[in-house]
Amino acid sequence: MQSYALTVDKFLDHAAKWSGDRQVVTAEPGRAAGRVGYAELRARSNRLSGALAALGLRFGDRIATLAWNTQHHLETYYAAMGAGLVCHTLNPRVTAAHLAAMVEEAEDRVLVVASSLIPLLMELAPLCPGIEHVVLIDGGGKALARLPEHKARLWTHESLLATHGAPAPWGGFDEETPAGLCYTSGTTGAPKGVLYTHRSNYLHTLRALQADAFALTGADSILVAVPMFHANGWGLPFAAPAVGAKLVLPGRHTDGASLATLMRDEGVSVAAGVQTIWLGVLDHLDAVGGELPDLKRVIIGGSTCPDALIQRMEERLGARVQTSWGMTELSPLGAIAPPDAPPSETRASGRPAMGLDLKLTDADGVTLAQQRGVVGYLKVKGASVLDRYFKAETDALDAEGYFDTGDLARIDEAGHLTICGRSKDLIKSGGEWINPTEIEDIIGRHPAVGQVAVIGRSDPKWGERPVLVVELRQGQSVDPQTLLEALRGKVADWWLPDQIVQISAMPLAATGKIDKSRLRADYVNGKIATEGANR
Amino acid sequence: MQSYALTVDKFLDHAAKWSGDRQVVTAEPGRAAGRVGYAELRARSNRLSGALAALGLRFGDRIATLAWNTQHHLETYYAAMGAGLVCHTLNPRVTAAHLAAMVEEAEDRVLVVASSLIPLLMELAPLCPGIEHVVLIDGGGKALARLPEHKARLWTHESLLATHGAPAPWGGFDEETPAGLCYTSGTTGAPKGVLYTHRSNYLHTLRALQADAFALTGADSILVAVPMFHANGWGLPFAAPAVGAKLVLPGRHTDGASLATLMRDEGVSVAAGVQTIWLGVLDHLDAVGGELPDLKRVIIGGSTCPDALIQRMEERLGARVQTSWGMTELSPLGAIAPPDAPPSETRASGRPAMGLDLKLTDADGVTLAQQRGVVGYLKVKGASVLDRYFKAETDALDAEGYFDTGDLARIDEAGHLTICGRSKDLIKSGGEWINPTEIEDIIGRHPAVGQVAVIGRSDPKWGERPVLVVELRQGQSVDPQTLLEALRGKVADWWLPDQIVQISAMPLAATGKIDKSRLRADYVNGKIATEGANR
Repeated sequence: MQSYALTVDKFLDHAAKWSGDRQVVTAEPGRAAGRVGYAELRARSNRLSGALAALGLRFGDRIATLAWNTQHHLETYYAAMGAGLVCHTLNPRVTAAHLAAMVEEAEDRVLVVASSLIPLLMELAPLCPGIEHVVLIDGGGKALARLPEHKARLWTHESLLATHGAPAPWGGFDEETPAGLCYTSGTTGAPKGVLYTHRSNYLHTLRALQADAFALTGADSILVAVPMFHANGWGLPFAAPAVGAKLVLPGRHTDGASLATLMRDEGVSVAAGVQTIWLGVLDHLDAVGGELPDLKRVIIGGSTCPDALIQRMEERLGARVQTSWGMTELSPLGAIAPPDAPPSETRASGRPAMGLDLKLTDADGVTLAQQRGVVGYLKVKGASVLDRYFKAETDALDAEGYFDTGDLARIDEAGHLTICGRSKDLIKSGGEWINPTEIEDIIGRHPAVGQVAVIGRSDPKWGERPVLVVELRQGQSVDPQTLLEALRGKVADWWLPDQIVQISAMPLAATGKIDKSRLRADYVNGKIATEGANR
Repeated sequence: MQSYALTVDKFLDHAAKWSGDRQVVTAEPGRAAGRVGYAELRARSNRLSGALAALGLRFGDRIATLAWNTQHHLETYYAAMGAGLVCHTLNPRVTAAHLAAMVEEAEDRVLVVASSLIPLLMELAPLCPGIEHVVLIDGGGKALARLPEHKARLWTHESLLATHGAPAPWGGFDEETPAGLCYTSGTTGAPKGVLYTHRSNYLHTLRALQADAFALTGADSILVAVPMFHANGWGLPFAAPAVGAKLVLPGRHTDGASLATLMRDEGVSVAAGVQTIWLGVLDHLDAVGGELPDLKRVIIGGSTCPDALIQRMEERLGARVQTSWGMTELSPLGAIAPPDAPPSETRASGRPAMGLDLKLTDADGVTLAQQRGVVGYLKVKGASVLDRYFKAETDALDAEGYFDTGDLARIDEAGHLTICGRSKDLIKSGGEWINPTEIEDIIGRHPAVGQVAVIGRSDPKWGERPVLVVELRQGQSVDPQTLLEALRGKVADWWLPDQIVQISAMPLAATGKIDKSRLRADYVNGKIATEGANR
């Protein structure tokens, strides 16, 4: 059969040819949304490839982006990848120092920045001497005439296109060519880079498009509320053009009012994003009224979603909620609940669509004889799964070639996967394991509790003992004994935390997840124990 | 990212793990249907791989099958492919002499035969001295004690499993490893072999599973009425386990009554097969009454389907009809109408799902400047498209790497592809082209006409001139002038056939398509002209 490289430029080529007038819409608060058809987007992206070549970028070079979900960012994705460059997405919520470390490790030559992030650019640029060109996207180029005391040449997206834009060859290289680079959030250690290839992105796209997964069609209008700097925006910047779906990008405004308006105006039928985003939309709709009549499905992920929220979403939005589980290292889709799964199954994270193999092992990595109904260490294998972290010296795989997700999971008899916590968060007490997630789930249901985390502290007798850390909701108070009572009878007595600490604000990582590494450090350093109450 | 070979054994592994109890059902007329879960099917297929190894088969060796759609045939597919052997499917409707030529070219070492085809085996075996083992499948092994005067050892599927069945390693080889071999029908020349690889089959499966194509889910029950010896059974033996759909196999009885009963009993939600199959089901339902309440979609292909039949199917079956176009050389899916396409679009063959590139050229192979609204020569490119015919010395591709489908096609402004005939059937008259398909479409609508074909005959003045050949419906008669009048005003006057010939039976190729090569030969040899009437 034909030699045919699986490269992502083919997605946009396909959209340009078969759905050339289908729109990519970018929200612009206070102004009419930006609109471009796939055919024009393809032409512009390709001309941008030509411009990047004119700047001296060579095959394999890396371009960093610090940007929201917009047409310009999408054009940068395809301009880079189509030309065999690597698109390195940076998370604007990370500190300048951490960003600079990633830019340096990646040896990025170009930095593409949303004009709304110029203050961050001003902090970052002096820390990134290797950057040769800065490209401001999403308008507002006049806000910055030059970059002070930095050799980098300053462009706007449109000035670069106007000056150097030219048709350029796309694809034609091996499908193992790197296409994207994304750093993990680092909640359990230093951020690590994941280098996606064209092949891994292409196969992830086809895998995610299955009818029991994203199930996108050319008739859909898809809102990508998950940031394009998080693991390829869940792969939707590839999946939407692949099927010719209308692509709706919210820019940087993902508050409930902005999203609800955008979804109604653009006839959004499928929406994807983390649960907190949808809370905002629900609150807005409850406050002002209004419906989203075209919405059929909401794909959520990022963390376990409480049943009550799923139910509220399905009732208020009139849409099916699809729970999912993924990781940066998985491109990112791991498992997803089918669109037509009965509500009873939505508590689980779903099932792995064809293309991901998984197994549950014990703590020593030995495959569990029984793979159903027990909690195990989740290991995965697949064409879109990490092999080795960027610039790491060794593979991150076990002897059978599986990657350790670091998650604990259970699979029920019917084959539904549920994530049960992080294996690194487990607390070993008296030689036995305590799973913080089980305790957190129970405490998290208490109406006074906003955020909750259970961490281990070292103990001379037991090795480790659990400490419960809670951030209460505003204006709420609770007696620590009440929280202990809530746990009693639901977990083993020896799982009961030795200490309960109330803090005013939980430390969060850039992805919004609780930063347990910092919480543990703060605890050890005595920064939070002062507010504590011993059992 | 991980090195992860795209091999088809992974489909059955996935089904065994995630949908182990989901059934594969084989119709057995007069008896209860055969049933097996994917987990057991996987175990049996894998043990059959072990048995084939015990027979001395080595990686890359070829196994021929002469069989219907049954569990045993499916087990043979996976046993062969999983072990790195090639499953060479033979069409039982081809003559023994032609089959023997294919078996010889393929150097098949094993011949797997449905017990209902023992008479054909008796004809074929003496012509195939290279066959070392014959395996009878689908019961009835007692019908044959030994193979007369042939060195081949005789087994039944179950005796082979019982004697030599053993767990065997599956996969672990390169994804470019050949997996299947299928010969084209040869309506326009000698049959040519298409050697599928694991990669081409795997990617075809993911491509076909898109929500705008087959859109199969784990909740579906799919009837595969297209033979497994036709281009991988449209890829459904791979697609069904990949998503964990219930797989319903009709065996050799594809008459309307058998299929209707099977579909009702097994809750079939999606059915796939050529249009003539569904005519039988419609006629049966009309005759005896009855409904197919679970049926949602019928995927048809193989030839252009009249609007009236599509309408009748949708009304009588209460299901959506998805038209499609494919070829053995394309694995086979080319284009398909989405499940939710409005009825106005069903006249077209559909659109190419992501993963197939195509272009329209002129007769000289030059890409048409205008790709919409004109008829052109259809050329395609993709990971599941033929590169070179089996044992051919040169590639079958143009300079840009496209394969010539031999079809003429038009794409409308909205991107719907319609096949308009075979380029080799075109008739050149006075330096201009006449398209037989356009004439055939008009004549085919006449109520007295059963089958119709327009062929070219050589003409000293014009080069070629068209001859209209018709097979009337039983008991019908028609005046040739009436047929000419039906054409007048609808095609150019110089397209009007010079001669109209009535024959009692149109020569058919093994796939059921009209064999125009033979028709032309018969005409030249004076075998059909005697019944003719000149204009």
